[in-house]
This record gives sequence, C-alpha cells and structure tokens, in this order.
Amino acid sequence: MTGYAPLEALLTVGGPELSRLLHRTESRLAQVAETHGRELGGHVTHTLSAGGKRLRPMLVFLCGGSGAGEDLVRAAVAAELLHMATLVHDDVLDGAATRRGRATVVAAAGRDAATATGDLLFSRAFAELASTGREEAVAVLSQASSALARGELLQRADAWSDSVGEERYLERCELKTARLFEAACRLGALLGEPGPEAADALGSFGLRVGIAFQIFDDVLDVSGPPERTGKPRGTDLLDGTVTLPLILARRRDPELRDLDLRSIVTEPAQADALCDRIALTGALGEARELALTYVAEAKAALSDLELDDRRREALDLVADGVVERYA
Amino acid sequence: MTGYAPLEALLTVGGPELSRLLHRTESRLAQVAETHGRELGGHVTHTLSAGGKRLRPMLVFLCGGSGAGEDLVRAAVAAELLHMATLVHDDVLDGAATRRGRATVVAAAGRDAATATGDLLFSRAFAELASTGREEAVAVLSQASSALARGELLQRADAWSDSVGEERYLERCELKTARLFEAACRLGALLGEPGPEAADALGSFGLRVGIAFQIFDDVLDVSGPPERTGKPRGTDLLDGTVTLPLILARRRDPELRDLDLRSIVTEPAQADALCDRIALTGALGEARELALTYVAEAKAALSDLELDDRRREALDLVADGVVERYA
Repeated sequence: MTGYAPLEALLTVGGPELSRLLHRTESRLAQVAETHGRELGGHVTHTLSAGGKRLRPMLVFLCGGSGAGEDLVRAAVAAELLHMATLVHDDVLDGAATRRGRATVVAAAGRDAATATGDLLFSRAFAELASTGREEAVAVLSQASSALARGELLQRADAWSDSVGEERYLERCELKTARLFEAACRLGALLGEPGPEAADALGSFGLRVGIAFQIFDDVLDVSGPPERTGKPRGTDLLDGTVTLPLILARRRDPELRDLDLRSIVTEPAQADALCDRIALTGALGEARELALTYVAEAKAALSDLELDDRRREALDLVADGVVERYA
Repeated sequence: MTGYAPLEALLTVGGPELSRLLHRTESRLAQVAETHGRELGGHVTHTLSAGGKRLRPMLVFLCGGSGAGEDLVRAAVAAELLHMATLVHDDVLDGAATRRGRATVVAAAGRDAATATGDLLFSRAFAELASTGREEAVAVLSQASSALARGELLQRADAWSDSVGEERYLERCELKTARLFEAACRLGALLGEPGPEAADALGSFGLRVGIAFQIFDDVLDVSGPPERTGKPRGTDLLDGTVTLPLILARRRDPELRDLDLRSIVTEPAQADALCDRIALTGALGEARELALTYVAEAKAALSDLELDDRRREALDLVADGVVERYA
C-alpha cells in the first residue's frame, strides 16, 4: 500500500474501523492462497502479497460504511482477486517481466503457471463473493468481469492505431478500469449500510472515479517522473497503447499526427523522447483537466445521497486522491 | 453431442425429463454468450456451440434426479462452462489449431481474444452457480476449479518426462479430469433429490468415472482409429504428455524405456509409429483393464445408496459408457 498519498488521510477519516477492515482483507487474501497445492499456492501468494493500493477494497468499505462487516470483507477480497486475476493474465499476454518492482508470475514461472494462477484467482473471486449468499452481488461482479474482458480486447484491437479518438479511449477506460470501480461501490452499497437504493448513486460515483483514475494513470505514464511512478516513462507507448495524452497531442501537433508509432517507438529512449514531445504540446494539462471533470462529476453523483459528514469526506478524499498520486 | 455411444440408451432410460433438462442447458449456454459485446460474445458462442458430449451436465441431472429443476440446470451449465473455460485456455497454451473439428478461439482470433474468452467463461461459470444462492454448491465448484488448475500444471511439469509413474499419472487424471466429474455429481446431489447426505457416495462415483474416462481417453489417443476418434493417433505423444499406455509399455519393452520422447517424436508419422509399438506391448489392454476397475469401483460406490432402478441403470450406463466410446 505504498505510493498512495491520500491513504494516511483516509485512514484518519475512516478511523480504526477502516484499518481493521483493510487488515482483515489482507489476512483473507493470504488465506486464499493456502489450499491450492504448493506450486500454485506459491504463485497466488506471490501475486497477492505484492501489495498495491487496495483501492477497490477501500471503495467497498467506504461505500459500505459499518454493518454487515463480514460480507463487506468478502466483497472487498473478491474485487481485489478479480483485479489481480486480470493483471496476471495481462502480464502473460504482454510477456511483462516485472510488476510493482517484483517478477511477474509469467516471468518467474512461465506461461502455464501464470495462466493457471489467473484462472484460479478468477474462480476464487466469485467463490468468495458467492459465500455472501447474495445473488445480486455476484451479478454485479460478473458484469464487471465481462467489461474487463471486453476492455482488454478493445485495448489490444486498438494497439498502434493512429485513429483512436477520445470517445473510443473513454469507452476503453470505462470497460477496462471503471466498471470494476463501479462494482466495488455497488457491492459496498448492496452489502453494507446504504442498501440497494443507494447502489446507483454510489455506482455512478465509482464509475467516474475509475475513469479519472485511468486517465491520470495514462498521464503519469507520460509525465513521470520515473523515480516517483516506479517505472520508465512511455511504457504504454512501447506497447502501442494509444492513450489520451497522445490522442490530444496529435490534435495539437500535426507532425505527431503523421508519425507511425510502431516505427518511431521501438526502444525506451525513443519512448522517453516522445513523452517530452507530447508534454510540450500541453496535452498533459488538458488530460488532467478532463480527469478533474470526472472527479467533480463523481462527487456530484453523491449530492442526493444522505451521507454522514465523515463518510462524504472520505469519499471525496478518494476521488481527489486518484488524481493526486504517483503510483 | 455426437460420438457418445450410450447417449441414445441414456435418453431412453432418462426419459423426456432428461431430454428436456439437456435442452434447457443448451438454451442457457447459448444465452450466456449474449451480453458480452459482439466480439467476445462471438467467441463464446463459437466455443459453446461446438458441442461435445455434455457429459458433466448429464452427470448433474442423473445424480440430481427430479426436483429443484432450475438449480440443476444452473449447476449443469456451470460445470460445462468451467470445462469450456479450461479447454479454451489449454488451447492457448498448446497453440492448438482445432478442437472438435473446428478452429479453436486462439487459432481463429489470437491469444488475446482466447485468454479473454476463457476468463469470461470462468467468471460466468461461478456467476451461474451462485444464482442458486447455495454457498456450499459454489464451494464444490471452486474446489474443482483449483484441482483443474493444479492438474494442468502437473501435466505440463511432467511433459517429456521419462520417470512419470502410474501413481503420478493417476494423480494427474484425478486433478485434471475426475474432480470436475466428482463436482458435477456432488452438485446433482446437493441441489437435486438425493440431498447432501448422498453427496459423498455420488461424488465418489463421479471421481472414479472421471478417472476411467481419462484413462480411456488416453488409450484412444494411442489406439485410434483416427476415423472414429476424429484426430490423428499419438497427439499426446507429440505434446510430450506421458500417459498410461506409454508408462505401461515402457515397463514391458526395455527399449522403449530408453527412448527419449522429445527426440523420437517430432512429427505425426513418428507418433503413429510409436503408437503401433506401444500397442504391440499389450499396454493398451492393461490400461483398459485399469479403466474397467475404476468403472466397477464407481458402480460399487453407489451400492449403499437408495436409488430407484431407473436411476441406477442410467448411472451404470454412464459409467460403462466412458469406456465404450470413440470421442
């Protein structure tokens, strides 16, 4: 849980209850690995213990409030497991060597092991949530899983494209990232204090926070600095992933529009140079502005909800936090 | 549902109710594909409509009997979806071109699409079963999924090995195949007429039927004939998968024991020749005998259960059927 600036503030607002719930989530994630044999269990542990911001569990808890504690932990664990499952399979397809500073499963143990590990994480995510006995909750996660798979396909279909526009990019952000944020918030509503009648508003909050998160992630890939983000600049460009900064920069710089990404970005130094060029157009500021618009919309989605002040403050902190971070 | 000899007999014994349940399973499988976008939905449809014996759904229904119809259909669909999910990912790892006479998803649409399709099928399997609201049923499927993943790893770890023995082979059969057969039978018991108290006996039946099924599958790979099995002989040998016929043949023919599989089987004609050589040792008969032992054990596992004659006859037919088939 490093690199996420608002965490400390959140834990102050969320109080000991939030800390306790997050702690129970970690314990449960560690347990999940234990019953799958030595090799597979090892890969699952390796994946789950790599950490991350645990942003999806946090959303479950902040939206869920107090009440129905055990079910909220199950939902938080399920959302994180689904997220991890997609990361493990993404790394297989990308042949990625490291994630969060440690070797990926595919790099450490090969494609077979990583595919099996991801499959297991998918299964466990749903088994965990099903243990709440709440069918409508499982349906929410299932829809998010479908969106994730479609988003992944969209991203790969659009790789190296010179014609991806803002609308298509935002659709991808929604499918690939924001729908699981939405699901986490909906699960919090369904299984926690707010109840089903608050699920749409909280879901809408989560969706917009998710889009802002993804846009800002894509800004960080271009802006760096690497010593803060923990990865070289332009990683997406090297993969051929066309993100908002490049889309906006192409509008502002006609020469950029005519460049064939595949031919000019073949090594890290070139990606770094292209990042500088994108930054020079002012595209990063424009992208940040759009992310902030989604943050504002997210907060506005909560306006009709009856929330105690502490909860509203915490949700606002999360929304602001996704565009005030480095990792 | 072609190539499965006992099907007609089963449908006669099972009557119109079994036909109706299998028909509802097909309809539901077709529906599952519909809400995942055009591309992904297409791949899912392609996978699910390729058919197969629907042996796992059949086991759910035959063990479940009448009663709780909708939940049994959900369990049948879930078991088949989980099976399909593993096939799609296996094909990715193997780079397989065809399955059941049509192009695999990976061959038709690439690794990205096939990985996403498999992920989606995993998710849908659990969502489908969770819709029964029966937590213990989801736990059964989750354990089977874990076993499948471990079995897959075991198979790949043992590829090309010259030291895999019978015990290790049987462990792999159990994990890779039989545990899902067991789960299908347990689900039938839990959600159908027999109830939880019959789950162990029916699960034990399913496990042994599953092991017999896998052994006989491995015999067919060596014995052919290709015009009946629909694939060339020795496909497993070409993949380096060491199965019971080879293990037994190595015991009987010292020269076979000293052969390095990787160097002598590099093309289909060589695999075919090795199949002849394995057959000459008498290993196929011995392997068939072992499969028949498991079939007998499966039937014996039912002896203490109170079953009406028709149901017992149908379950015996399934058990006999796995070693009297070509596909």
